[in-house]
This record gives sequence, C-alpha cells and structure tokens, in this order.
Amino acid sequence: MPAEIKGLNEECGVFGVWGDNCAAELTHLGLHTLQHRGQEGAGIVGLTPAGLRRHYGLGLVSEVFRDPQSVTQLQGTAALGHVRYSTAGGRILENIQPLLFRFTTEAIALAHNGNLTNALSLRKKLEAAGAIFQSTSDSEVLMHLIRLSQQPTFELQLIEALNQVHGGFAFELLTQSALYAAVDPNGFRPLVIGRLSSGGYVVCSETAALNAVGAEFVQDVQPGQLVIIDDSGMRVRAYTTHTQLAVCSMEYVYFARPDSEIYGISVHEARVRMGMRLAHEQPVDADIVVGVPNSSLSAALGYSRASGIPYEMGLIKSQYVARTFIQPTQELRERSVRLKLSPVRSVIKGKRVVLVDDSIVRGTTARQLVQLFKDAGALEVHLRIASPPLRFPCFYGIDIQTTRELMAANHSVAEMRDIFGVNSLAFLSTQGLIDSVGLSDTAPNGGLCVAYFTGEYPTPLEDYAPALKQELSQLQLHVSEVSA
Amino acid sequence: MPAEIKGLNEECGVFGVWGDNCAAELTHLGLHTLQHRGQEGAGIVGLTPAGLRRHYGLGLVSEVFRDPQSVTQLQGTAALGHVRYSTAGGRILENIQPLLFRFTTEAIALAHNGNLTNALSLRKKLEAAGAIFQSTSDSEVLMHLIRLSQQPTFELQLIEALNQVHGGFAFELLTQSALYAAVDPNGFRPLVIGRLSSGGYVVCSETAALNAVGAEFVQDVQPGQLVIIDDSGMRVRAYTTHTQLAVCSMEYVYFARPDSEIYGISVHEARVRMGMRLAHEQPVDADIVVGVPNSSLSAALGYSRASGIPYEMGLIKSQYVARTFIQPTQELRERSVRLKLSPVRSVIKGKRVVLVDDSIVRGTTARQLVQLFKDAGALEVHLRIASPPLRFPCFYGIDIQTTRELMAANHSVAEMRDIFGVNSLAFLSTQGLIDSVGLSDTAPNGGLCVAYFTGEYPTPLEDYAPALKQELSQLQLHVSEVSA
Amino acid sequence: MPAEIKGLNEECGVFGVWGDNCAAELTHLGLHTLQHRGQEGAGIVGLTPAGLRRHYGLGLVSEVFRDPQSVTQLQGTAALGHVRYSTAGGRILENIQPLLFRFTTEAIALAHNGNLTNALSLRKKLEAAGAIFQSTSDSEVLMHLIRLSQQPTFELQLIEALNQVHGGFAFELLTQSALYAAVDPNGFRPLVIGRLSSGGYVVCSETAALNAVGAEFVQDVQPGQLVIIDDSGMRVRAYTTHTQLAVCSMEYVYFARPDSEIYGISVHEARVRMGMRLAHEQPVDADIVVGVPNSSLSAALGYSRASGIPYEMGLIKSQYVARTFIQPTQELRERSVRLKLSPVRSVIKGKRVVLVDDSIVRGTTARQLVQLFKDAGALEVHLRIASPPLRFPCFYGIDIQTTRELMAANHSVAEMRDIFGVNSLAFLSTQGLIDSVGLSDTAPNGGLCVAYFTGEYPTPLEDYAPALKQELSQLQLHVSEVSA
Amino acid sequence: MPAEIKGLNEECGVFGVWGDNCAAELTHLGLHTLQHRGQEGAGIVGLTPAGLRRHYGLGLVSEVFRDPQSVTQLQGTAALGHVRYSTAGGRILENIQPLLFRFTTEAIALAHNGNLTNALSLRKKLEAAGAIFQSTSDSEVLMHLIRLSQQPTFELQLIEALNQVHGGFAFELLTQSALYAAVDPNGFRPLVIGRLSSGGYVVCSETAALNAVGAEFVQDVQPGQLVIIDDSGMRVRAYTTHTQLAVCSMEYVYFARPDSEIYGISVHEARVRMGMRLAHEQPVDADIVVGVPNSSLSAALGYSRASGIPYEMGLIKSQYVARTFIQPTQELRERSVRLKLSPVRSVIKGKRVVLVDDSIVRGTTARQLVQLFKDAGALEVHLRIASPPLRFPCFYGIDIQTTRELMAANHSVAEMRDIFGVNSLAFLSTQGLIDSVGLSDTAPNGGLCVAYFTGEYPTPLEDYAPALKQELSQLQLHVSEVSA
Repeated sequence: MPAEIKGLNEECGVFGVWGDNCAAELTHLGLHTLQHRGQEGAGIVGLTPAGLRRHYGLGLVSEVFRDPQSVTQLQGTAALGHVRYSTAGGRILENIQPLLFRFTTEAIALAHNGNLTNALSLRKKLEAAGAIFQSTSDSEVLMHLIRLSQQPTFELQLIEALNQVHGGFAFELLTQSALYAAVDPNGFRPLVIGRLSSGGYVVCSETAALNAVGAEFVQDVQPGQLVIIDDSGMRVRAYTTHTQLAVCSMEYVYFARPDSEIYGISVHEARVRMGMRLAHEQPVDADIVVGVPNSSLSAALGYSRASGIPYEMGLIKSQYVARTFIQPTQELRERSVRLKLSPVRSVIKGKRVVLVDDSIVRGTTARQLVQLFKDAGALEVHLRIASPPLRFPCFYGIDIQTTRELMAANHSVAEMRDIFGVNSLAFLSTQGLIDSVGLSDTAPNGGLCVAYFTGEYPTPLEDYAPALKQELSQLQLHVSEVSA
Repeated sequence: MPAEIKGLNEECGVFGVWGDNCAAELTHLGLHTLQHRGQEGAGIVGLTPAGLRRHYGLGLVSEVFRDPQSVTQLQGTAALGHVRYSTAGGRILENIQPLLFRFTTEAIALAHNGNLTNALSLRKKLEAAGAIFQSTSDSEVLMHLIRLSQQPTFELQLIEALNQVHGGFAFELLTQSALYAAVDPNGFRPLVIGRLSSGGYVVCSETAALNAVGAEFVQDVQPGQLVIIDDSGMRVRAYTTHTQLAVCSMEYVYFARPDSEIYGISVHEARVRMGMRLAHEQPVDADIVVGVPNSSLSAALGYSRASGIPYEMGLIKSQYVARTFIQPTQELRERSVRLKLSPVRSVIKGKRVVLVDDSIVRGTTARQLVQLFKDAGALEVHLRIASPPLRFPCFYGIDIQTTRELMAANHSVAEMRDIFGVNSLAFLSTQGLIDSVGLSDTAPNGGLCVAYFTGEYPTPLEDYAPALKQELSQLQLHVSEVSA
Repeated sequence: MPAEIKGLNEECGVFGVWGDNCAAELTHLGLHTLQHRGQEGAGIVGLTPAGLRRHYGLGLVSEVFRDPQSVTQLQGTAALGHVRYSTAGGRILENIQPLLFRFTTEAIALAHNGNLTNALSLRKKLEAAGAIFQSTSDSEVLMHLIRLSQQPTFELQLIEALNQVHGGFAFELLTQSALYAAVDPNGFRPLVIGRLSSGGYVVCSETAALNAVGAEFVQDVQPGQLVIIDDSGMRVRAYTTHTQLAVCSMEYVYFARPDSEIYGISVHEARVRMGMRLAHEQPVDADIVVGVPNSSLSAALGYSRASGIPYEMGLIKSQYVARTFIQPTQELRERSVRLKLSPVRSVIKGKRVVLVDDSIVRGTTARQLVQLFKDAGALEVHLRIASPPLRFPCFYGIDIQTTRELMAANHSVAEMRDIFGVNSLAFLSTQGLIDSVGLSDTAPNGGLCVAYFTGEYPTPLEDYAPALKQELSQLQLHVSEVSA
Repeated sequence: MPAEIKGLNEECGVFGVWGDNCAAELTHLGLHTLQHRGQEGAGIVGLTPAGLRRHYGLGLVSEVFRDPQSVTQLQGTAALGHVRYSTAGGRILENIQPLLFRFTTEAIALAHNGNLTNALSLRKKLEAAGAIFQSTSDSEVLMHLIRLSQQPTFELQLIEALNQVHGGFAFELLTQSALYAAVDPNGFRPLVIGRLSSGGYVVCSETAALNAVGAEFVQDVQPGQLVIIDDSGMRVRAYTTHTQLAVCSMEYVYFARPDSEIYGISVHEARVRMGMRLAHEQPVDADIVVGVPNSSLSAALGYSRASGIPYEMGLIKSQYVARTFIQPTQELRERSVRLKLSPVRSVIKGKRVVLVDDSIVRGTTARQLVQLFKDAGALEVHLRIASPPLRFPCFYGIDIQTTRELMAANHSVAEMRDIFGVNSLAFLSTQGLIDSVGLSDTAPNGGLCVAYFTGEYPTPLEDYAPALKQELSQLQLHVSEVSA
C-alpha cells in the first residue's frame, strides 16, 4: 500500500441544506460553528442554476472562504459543506470534501464524517475491477458502490451501497434533485435534522450548528436510517434493521461542543455529571478546582459542585489562533506553549489545586500544564481526568490511531503520576462515564462505544484487526487497572 | 483638518526587549500575548547587525508575521513591537507602529500606547514651522519634539519632549544604543519591567506578556518615570515630579487580560471582587449566574460566590475568529452574531438567569445576548453590569470616542432596561468599583481614572475640550443617576 | 450533458524527465519554456523517495511555483510536467494536469496534449459500467481503459488503451518504474526526445524546451510510436502500424516557438518561407513591411526578403503581462489593447505599410491593429496573412472550436477587407503553406493537417461529426474562394 | 551614514493626470506602459472626493494593482502615479512613490524620476534643523524645502525649492487644486505633456504613455521649466534661466521605449541610426546580423541596412516573466538564463554572426549570450555595441552606480574581446552616438549627457565628488581608448 493511502482515521463535520435561498450562506455559517470538528480543510458544494459548483481548500473555514465571492458563487437552494480534521498524512487537496463527482449525465457531491472498517478491502476489490479513486480517503468507496449497483433508482443504489460499508459514518450526498443523509447501524457518529423558518431543512453533525443558523431541531438521525429530503419534503427510512446503539463516548467527553445535544443528552450537562461523578469516585482535599479551558470547564464545574471545593479560573486560553511556526530554541518552543494557555498566578499561588482535564492522550500538554502550575506557585497539584484511561485506538472516526502513542496504554496510573509530577492522579471509571451520560438503560454500555477504554469493539474490525492484534501483542497492557 | 487625521483615540500594546539574542522572537511571542490590545495591525523593529529593521502590516500578529522569515530577518539583541487597535478611520499602513525614523546619522523606533490631549495643537505648531509628519496618529509628535530640542543628549531631549506632551501614554523608543520607556504623569496606561534569564530586560504593557516569555516581574513603571536600558543595565529616573496616580479603570474592568497584574493588583481578582460587590449592591433572586465570555467570567464568578447562586456556563464563545463579511440579509447578519456567542439551551431553559457583563458601551451586543437567552427559554433575565454606566468619552487612550454613541449617556437605567427587555438591570457603583480594585487609599478615586463614569477628568482636556463641551450641551445627561 | 463537461478542445505542453537527480527542477525550467502552450494552469509530479508527489494550480508557471519549496519538495530522479491552455469553460483545478492516480498498489501520473474525437462516447460507455471520472477533460479516459485492460503487463495494457482512443494526442505517463510517451497515429501533436549530459532522458512538446535544459535532441516521436524509458534505457516501439503523417499545420503557422524544430523543420525558417511565398503569391507596392510581434515577425522577415520592401519595427509588444481587468468605459477598454501592442509612429507615419499577421481567427485584434496604424498616420495598410483563411474547427487539440466564431467562415475576403478597412487583404494559399513547410513529398498535403482551411479531416470526427454537420449547414461558406 | 540610506541612484517613471473623470484608470494604464522604467514598486495617488488617497506596494504594476478595487477606490478627476526601479538596497515600502504627505491643513503627493547631487548635504542640513524624513530616497528633500520656504504661495515655495536641488530630476506634485511638473535645468530626465479628448492633461515620462491613453502630444517640458495645470488650464513658466541641454544619452541608447520620442527624436529611429553608424565605423564580413531582443533590435536593423548583411531573428526572448529563484546547482543557474533568451539554432548554425547589443555594463549577459551562439554552432561571433564603453557612473538618475562594476572601466577592449571569447568586439564612438541622435547642433555634445563614456559631467557632482575621485584613483582607466 503506497504511503499516500494512510491516515484513514479522521474526525469531521458535515452540514447540508435543502430548500432555502441562502443555502450556501447558511452552510458557510454552519461550517464556522462546526470548525472544532476539523481544521485541516473545508469545502462547500452549492446547487446553483448552473448545476453543482464547488469551492474548497486547505485551512480554516475563514481562510478557505476569505473572499465573499467564494460563497456567493455557490448561491442556490441547496448546499453541502464539510470540515476536515488535520491528520499527519493525507494532507492533500484531493481529500478535502465534499467530493464532487461530475458524470456526463449528472453530478453528485459527497461528504462523510467517520471511518469505514472495510474501506481498504472494498477499495482493493473495486480497483481490481478497474475503478479509479481520486482521493486517498475512504469516503469515496461509497460512490463507487453506488455506481456499480444494478438497482433501478438512485435511492435503492444508495441503500445497497450503505449495506456494504461497515464502521462509523454519517454520510450526506447532494444531487440536483435531493439531499440524502445516512448514519451507520451503531450511530457511532452523530447527525441531526433541523427545520428552517423558510421551510427548508438542515442536516448536520451537531445541534449547535442548527442553533447558529436559526433552525429548529427536528430529530436525530437514528442508527441505520436514511433521510431523503427533496422538494416534496422529508422522508426517513431504515436501510437496515441490524442496528445497535453505540454512540462514540468521546463525542460527549471532549469532541462535541458543550452547547450541542446528542440523542437528547446535553453535552455540557453530561460533562458536568462526569465531573460530579469523578469527585465522588476520586475525592481529594484541596483549595480550588481548575479546569483546562475550554473543553474541561464543564467537568471542572461538576467536580467543584460535588466536592464543594471552589471553582476557579486558574488558566486563561488565548482567543487568538497563534500560528506557531518552528521556534529556533527549545526554550522558545516551550514558551510558545504558554501562548495558548497561561496560568493566573494570583489564583494559583499557595493553593492546593485540583486540575481537571477531559482526557489524557499522549500526555504532552498535561505535563506542560502541571509545570506551569508549579512555576506559578501551586502547593499541590491533583490531576483528575473526567474519562477513563485511553488505551485502545478508535476505528470509527476519532483520530486515536495507534496504541503506541497512547500514554495510558504504555504506563500504569502510578507511572503517569510520577511522569507528570503531580501529587495524585485519578481517572473516571468506565461505568462512571456511562452513568454520567445516561443515554440508554437497555443498550450495552448504556448505548455508548467505550472501546478506547476497554478494547471491546462493538463491530468486527475487519481491515484493522491484524494490525491491532500485532500492536497489542507488543504492549504490556495494564489490563487489571482497566477493569478497576 | 483633512479627513485622514481622525480617530486619534486608540488602545494598543507595546513590547520591548534589550539584551537577549532572541529579542525578535520574544517580541513576536509577546505581541501574540498582547493581541487583545489591538487587532488592526502589528509591527516589530529589530536591532540587527545591519541596524534597525522593521516588519509591519495590517492584520493580526499571526497574519502580519505569517512568514517565519519575517521574524528571523529582525534577529538581534534588541527589539520593539506594537499591536494597534482597530478604529474606524486611520486604517492606513503609515499608522502601524513602531514608527521607524531613518536619519542620516542614526535610526530610532517609536511605539506608543495612549492618547495625547495636546497632539493636534502641537502638530499644527510644528507643521507651521516646517515639520512633515508621516502618519496621522499623534504618536509622531514626540519624535519631532525630540529632534527640535536643544538639549545636549538624547536622554535630555527625550525628557524635554516628554514634558511637552500631555494626556495618557506609555512610550517606548529603541535606538542602536538603548531602549527607553516612559509613562505619563498619571499612569493612565500600564507599563511593566521584567527580567529574562539571559540577563536581558523586557518592558511591556502587561505582566501576562512577561509570563509568556518567561521573564520575571521587576516593577511597574510609575507615573512620570523614564526607564533607560542599555548594555550597562537599567536606570529609572523621574522626568517630572508633578504626578498623580489615575490608572485607567477600564484596564481593570475589561481591557487587560485576567492573568495580568497592574500596579500589584490581579486583574482577575479585581473582577471577582467587582462581581461580589455587585451582588451586594444589586442582589436578585435567581437560579443561575452566567457571565459573558471571556472578559466577564471573573465578575460572574464573584457574583455567584457572594450571592450563593450557582455559577453556570450558559454561553459558549467560539474559539475561531470568524471573518464575518457582510451578509446578504438581515436575518443572516443576526445569525452571524451567534457564531461568536451561543447559548447552552439545557442550562438556560426554564431558569431565572443573572447575566453578568463587564460594561455597556453601545448596548448592541447586550440586546442580542438577551434575545438569545429568551429564545433559549430563560424564564427571567437580570442583567448586572460590573462597572458603572459609561457616559463620557475617554481621551487618554481607550476607544470610547464620543458621548453620542454611549448608551448610558443617552438613556436612563430604566429606559435601558426596557430597551434590553430584561426583568431588571443594575450597574456597579463608582465607589464599588474603586473599592473592588483597591489600588490606593490616598489618591483621589483610589488612584483610578473614573472620568468615563463621572465626567471629572484628572487633567485638562486641551484640544478636546471644545468638542466635548458642545457634545454635552446637546445631551440630557441623567446626572442624578450617575451619583446614585 | 452537464455544463461542466465542455471545452474539450485544448492546447497544452508536456515535459517529462527520467534519470536525472534534478528532474523536478529541469521540468520546472522546461515548463517555463513551454509556457506559450498553455497559461491556464500548470503542474509537476515528481518521483520522490516517498513516491509520486504533485504540485499544481491555476495560473502561470511562475505563479503556481512561486514558492521555491513547491519545486524542491518534488525532488527525485524523474518528473512529469504540464501546462494547460485557458479555455472559456472547464477552468477548474481538477482539470489541471498531470493527473495523479493513487491506487492502493501504485500511483500513476498522466499528462496529455491533444484532443480525442471519441472521448465522450468512451466516457459514457465507461460511466455506464461504473467508472468515476475526477476531471471533465478527455485525458482521463486513457487511464480507465488501461485499468480495464486484461493484458498481463502495464505496457501491454497501455498499448491496448492507445489503440482505443482516436484523435490527436501526445501522452506521457509516469510510474515509479518508467516514463511512457506516445503520439497519435497521425502525429497531429509534436513530441520530441532529448538526452541529458547526466545520461537521463527528456520527452517534451518542443525542441526549444530541450535546449532550455541543455538536452541534446535524439529524435521525434513518430506517429503511432510508444516510447518507454526506465533505468535500463530507452525503447521505442510501434503500438499501431495504421499511421499517416498529418502534423498540425498551425504548430508551424503560429503555435510553436520559432526556435523549435518539428520533424526536422525549423519553425522560424518555415515561417520565413511562408512570408516569402506570400510575397510571391500576393505582392503589393509599399514602403515598409511590419510584422505583428512576436509570432508574425518571421513571416514578415520573409515577406521583406522576397519583396525587397524594407523590414521595419512598426509595432512594439509589451514585455510585461498586463492583467487587464474589466475597464469601466468602452474608451478605456480600447486603450487597454494598446498596452500589449503599440505602433512606432515615426516608422509608420506617411508610409504605405504591408502588415503581416500569421492568421485571422475572430479578426478582433487585426481590426484594432489596423486602426492603430491609421491613427499613427499610415498612408496605406495592406494586410497579408501568412496562412490560408481559417474556416473549420480543429478537433485534434487546437482551440479553434466553432465555425461560428471564425471570421473567414462567415465572410468573403472582400467583406473582411472592408470590415478591416484595409487597402488590400490577401492570404497564403493552402498549397503555398504546404510547400513552405516542406515536410514530406509523399504524404497527403505534404504530411500536414490542413483541415482548418479545407474542411477535409484526416480522420473520422466521431463524437463531433453531428455538431459540425449542423453548424456547416447554417453557414454560407465561401468554398470557391477556399480553393483559390 | 546608516546602511539604509544608500541606493540613491534610481530610474523611474512618472505619470500625472488633471481634469479627467477616469484619472486613476488612465494613470494605471500609463504605469503599465512605463513599467520598463521601474519594476521594484508602483503607486498611484488619486484625488478623490474624500481627498488624496494612495495605493502602493512592492512589485510590478500588475501585482500591486491586482485587485480592481485598488484602482477604483482612487477614482476622481486627477491622479499621480510612479514606477520605481529595483536597486540592491533601499527596497522598502517607505521608498515607493508617490510619497503622500498628510498635513493637518492639506495633503500633497510627490513623484520623482532622477537623482539629486546635493540631496545628502541638504538632508543633513534639514535634519540638523529638526526635519524628519519618512523615506531613504532623496526625493523627499524637495518637500521639506517647500515647507520651509517663506514665499507667500505654494507655487513660489516650489520654485524656491526647485532652485535649491541640483542634479537630474523630473518632479510631479499633486495637490487638491493643481498638478505641478518640473524638469531639471539640464533636461537630464524626460517629461512630456499631452492633452486628452476630455480636455484634461497628462504629464508623463514618455510619449509612449501618451499614446497608450489616447492623449495628443502637446510639448516636451524644457529644461528649467515648471508646468502648472489646474481647472483654469495649463501654464508653463521658467523657474530658472540657467539652463543647458544635456539629455541623458542612455535614454536613447537603451532605457526609453522605441515607440517614444524624446525632444522630437524617435527613439527607434535614433537606435537605427546608431546601428547604421556602427556599421560604418566598425564593419565586419559576416553572414547575418542578430540583435539582442528587445532593446537592441532597432540598432541591429540599422547595422543590417548599412552593411547589407541580412537581418535575422537569431535570439528569442520569452514573453513570460520567469521568477527565477535561486537554483540548486551552477548548471541549473546557467540553464535558467536560457529561459529569457534562447538562440534559433537553424538560423545560427554555420553562420558568421554580427551580434548587436546596445551596451555593456557588467558584461555578464553578453558572455552568456556568446556561449549560447557558440553552442548553437555559430562559426564566428562579432560583437558590436551600439554605444561607447560605459566607464563612469551616472549621478543623474540611471542606475550605473559604481565604476568598479563597469566592465569597460576595468578592461581594455582587447581584454573584453578575450573574456567574451568573440572573434571581434567594437563599440560606437561617442561622436557617432551624438550624430546618430541628432538632437542639437549648438549645445555641447549635441545636447546629450555623455558623462558615462567621457567622465565629463555637465554639472558639479557635489556630494558624490569625493567618492568618485577615490574610486577613479583606484582604477587603471584606459583613457587613451576612451578618446579614440
């Protein structure tokens, strides 16, 4: 497999509109709201009087659409937008979505959030039969399956294709006659439907984006559902009945915006509950609770409430995205970290601090943060993580690619405590996380995917199974702690 | 007076380094930290082996210094940087600082934060004598006065010039042999000195920038002081003894970073105290306290603590700077406001909310915020402002230029309450503000300038006096309420 | 057929290198030399240690490769470059070549100069079978045919594919193991092989590009030939024996650089002979001969030599590419024409001028030029065109797309003379053109394609036949004059 | 003197309009036509309803004014434009003209082509009195002199100032009420007046720019004249009577466009006569005459005519400005030269070539050209230079700054012949040049400045005299040959 076809794991945001005369502008606003889901690149396809037109590029939404003309040229009654996460490899323009397929008889745009576990084997099979791919991402597989389907209508072709791809996905497709949206059978990736005052529809990754464009929430797209929106209205049908709810728990933990709701659960409230549960599970005697802005502030608030220890603003996050280019010296490199997060000395000095973070991935940032607190005069630092230790990669769309890079897969909690140099370190339990979200009483793991913590994946890993097996065999996983 | 010479009031940030081999890089980091003090443009002058070199431009620091080469070309042992606030007029490259004066015998860089009350009359007098100005800002006057001085040394020339300019200023000048820094006789504008581990010195607007570059705080530059830093070390001398402390209270209220300390007072702590005092002065029966991120979060925390009403995250501020270009429809324009601030519905719905904001200028944002809260289902909204009503313009460097634009100068509190559509509206008292900061027991107004609230300016307004007099005569000021 | 799939006719330049450590840099130089063959966009694929990498974009070579890094990142031992002509439609990034196909097992780059007469029908057939195209240009068809071939080796698959596409083409393909180059069975489009001092090979559109990189001319690629260059050296084989030389005569007339040689004929010398023949066929009594710079200077020199009338520099062409954006008034629009060409008044005033141009397409430029000469005081203007009247479109790769736009297809020579307002107007005869080039004594039309003048196309027009038939039926072609 | 104040010698183009509603657009077109006079930067000041507005930047006119908005924002009834030559030092934005001086009571724009011999001493004197300069160019001195003048009107102030600056200059100044233009007492630098069909006036560097905007030639500005154009029409007055015609001969030799006329002499025709005279003075037995495009084509045509040796197109100049960035190897660097000029092998091979170039400065290009001819198979190369050897610097505005860099100041003709490797080398005589131009029978040197060839400067060199004296003392000038 050539070097270009890697980095298959990505997190993204999608935003589609049908039936509003400001479709492209609304999509532009929507992508701004979903910017946290992907900063590598962005694109919009608009259904204009001259057909589907695309503008896309590498960079933030504000960079790609710097020229107002770039949006107005896409003006029409429907649009589809996408933001893409930055992964190490695969940072090429061809991978920026929506993909736009120009056939001699029609054009189709495709946007995808998620990751397919059988993309590579499907692609190999398709290529062997003569198919040519334009991107290195796995999203394109769906279009080839559609085109090869012998079903009589596009809708049936799409359904046939959706039943062939496995893994986590929220797909949106835009044609000249309809907007299609579908979620995988486990609901790994979120997708919601909203209604505009114009009567048009929005289908996008998070409810926060519905709010941003003034759309009223209609419903979540359920696992295994296909939504079809055209000029006659909205239809929802199941493309499969083999479904099992397993929403990505990391959406609740750190990925989604706090002002979003996923399957009816407020992300902010869920995080507050995680913080409260964490305080009960892992109490500590301290003076103040400080959260790492911005994603851990909700959990810190919860910890403070449950423990009675005062909530404080001990860290300031810069409001400006500093393009930190490579610094000439190590000292300058470390200083540039402080551009993003800086401690409030008057708050921290002489205090015993509970520092709440949402998760530990590589551990780099946590290590630097702890040092900042010590330099600012903290008496004690107690690190509390509002999720269980991340030990296993995700294959459904979150960019946690390899066990090797995960700190908790390579170190015990005691080791990590020493590496961080904190007075104590503790994590939320998996059951605590499940209870805090409170999504389902009946589904396994409360309707969440918690494979990153437990290694128990809700679906077969297919193309990824051999590599994972090999990785795990090389690691000394602290399995006893996992179950604790 | 031609149209170009307007917008004399501006807020800015300055950052100077002497005696460190990474002077330009440190200044670059420092300007990122001071970015909140000015987003119109930025510049750095570096003392390179080939003399003083400048790079500058319109835009954010990250835009002006997008190319790493733009910083490295300024490499040397000293540097001076500046960020400039965006005002309506005067947005021309010539006004971006540091100004660099190239004489046949030497070169001098000048950076200025503040506003001079006699700049226009000085400029007219200088022009009548043949002087030519390259910018339309008032900062350049100082250099002309220096050059016309008959004093034998640059230091004495500078002192003579500093005694001729009036108003609010923090000046920094860089020559090939020294870095000079001076603060006006009232200390309107802040300036602090720090020491680097290399032995070099930093002089900049806020202590947060010292922290960002790892410099140790040495001292605040006191009113009427001139600091001279050269290879033999640092000297501080008084250029005048007619001083009277009157620090700009708006620095504490909203302008400075919460992680900065001004004259020994933590900005964050001062804001917490403002919120606590506000809770005592203006209590209300409610369910949650929500602050407007990010500048009002400290005050909201204080209000919560003093009142016992739970602190909540009811508003989310986007982490991405959205370039919001002109939207085609009014509806889209209003939606684009939500890109910056969005309510957390699950938090707000059905709640009686105390919404804490740091100040009311035009009132536009507050009006939109209140609407967002109502749309999100708030039962009641009680707006609490952690500073007194802004009724008078600032002539010392804060961009509050005209009484006409100030909502509180044109409306009573009751009128404003109705305009906002809130259940109640209340402001912190001036004495409450003074006590909360707690800067000085002896100086008038506790060592603060509170002219924006009281109309009592600590110095003669000179060039601005006639225009202000005329403005005030046209307004019906609610003076009775001011004293309340 | 959607609007995007149009503008299939394009002229381009290709440049491939195998076996030189500066492959990407050489290709960059080569593309500069071929810039006249296409200004819409440019791209280079380099065979780097990490596999095939591409940099491409819309604009001139100097714009696309403004950043030196854009070339150095492609460093390796082989490279393939392309410049693309600007046509009205189809100006999208996806059409910029070389196309880069990333398969799971390998990657292949493709560059094409020419136009296929059966591209659309092939594409429709392929799409019906499930194929997905990434561009709207016809070049991509070849890759799909290759991938669908059942032949055992890539070389044989390529040969099978080459035998399925019809029309004019010079294809180059780069894989990790070899560089392939092929010319259509009629040799419509030129392609030459050169040898570098390093031992490496260059295959490109014109010999001028060989000179630019210091490569020694080896041979022209002959009609129906496939060239394979890999680390074991160069092989040339015929992929078909059904060949018939019909080199595009417009390459000699105006398209190729004067310092190039096509099939051994110097372009400059051929043009000088066209001018001489024109002087014999269409003599006139005049004072000076002026050519339209730069493409008609050779013919003007020839006309001067044969007629004895002094050659003069009566027109100056600007050396700067003026981006002429839309001018607010008609007067300004006409003035902006003079930015490109301006008359030398002292040369023209009071003179009887023979103005030599290489061809008349729409006639717009000629009309404006004649007016410039009259304004500059020319006594008489005799327009002499060094090629026959263009009356029929080209379907083999020159951007003469529709008979409707061709002035000579809609007007008699006498009518054109009156429209131009010249004292006389005359064209070179088709036989004169054939004799002037002097390519072949045996092949029909001397081995040239002269279909634009005669309407007799050397191959079936296939997909284009119906549209051409309809167009011609709507025009009153002055066929009698054509044969004159 | 600090490093920044160098590179005082520059060549430039100026273009002013008064009294036309498309003033800014016309100036934009005019600057395109004058682009050859300066490629470092460009700027336009427009007299808009809101006063004088400026747009300027580093780069070509097409780059600086890439955005149409950049011109339309300057819309009004008058404008002043400038293009600036690229010199090694001083490439800073502050030096890009027109300079725009914003006073509290008015604004004035200034554009300058030329060089002042007493700029430095004037500047030092002015700075000692307190003046501050914004640029490092010498043009700004004039404005300071104007502002210090005690004369009652601007016109008289300007006249006083013009009498204080020495050297070569064509100044244009734009105020809200008039356009001023003045030429130095020797007429070193050209300036012409044209009339638009709208009744407005144009004053610019060359008649070619008049043609480009459709303006009718009115008259040359004579040495010592000041032109004032306002809404009441045009006035011409002498600001001094101490005049002596000494037009820069290099304007005729290579600098001006061939389609311009300077003091009534066609530049193209003058160059043809130089070539003819050169053929008479320095005949040679050869097969073809080839000129170096584009500036030497006129002289080559003259040489051909006078000698009877056929004129040939042996060199092709690329029509595309290749941004040639630093090439990794010496071989690639030399190849990149061929991007600009490439030989026509079929023309050159086996021929004895007379290669005509307009001048020899450093000799680098000539050396490379000769090598190209040899590689292309030339039997003999005879280099003929259509001007005398350049041995002395220019201090009046042409960028020939130092004798050290001038090949002919350091080598005899015989030495140069050997260095070039040509069969013969010969220059036009100074008298031949004077006769060829044919400007004046009465003025010394026929009204030309020929100091670059003879070292006899028409005016005192003032600030430059000491440096020149020292330079010359270090060189072994071949004075005997100079007089030959």
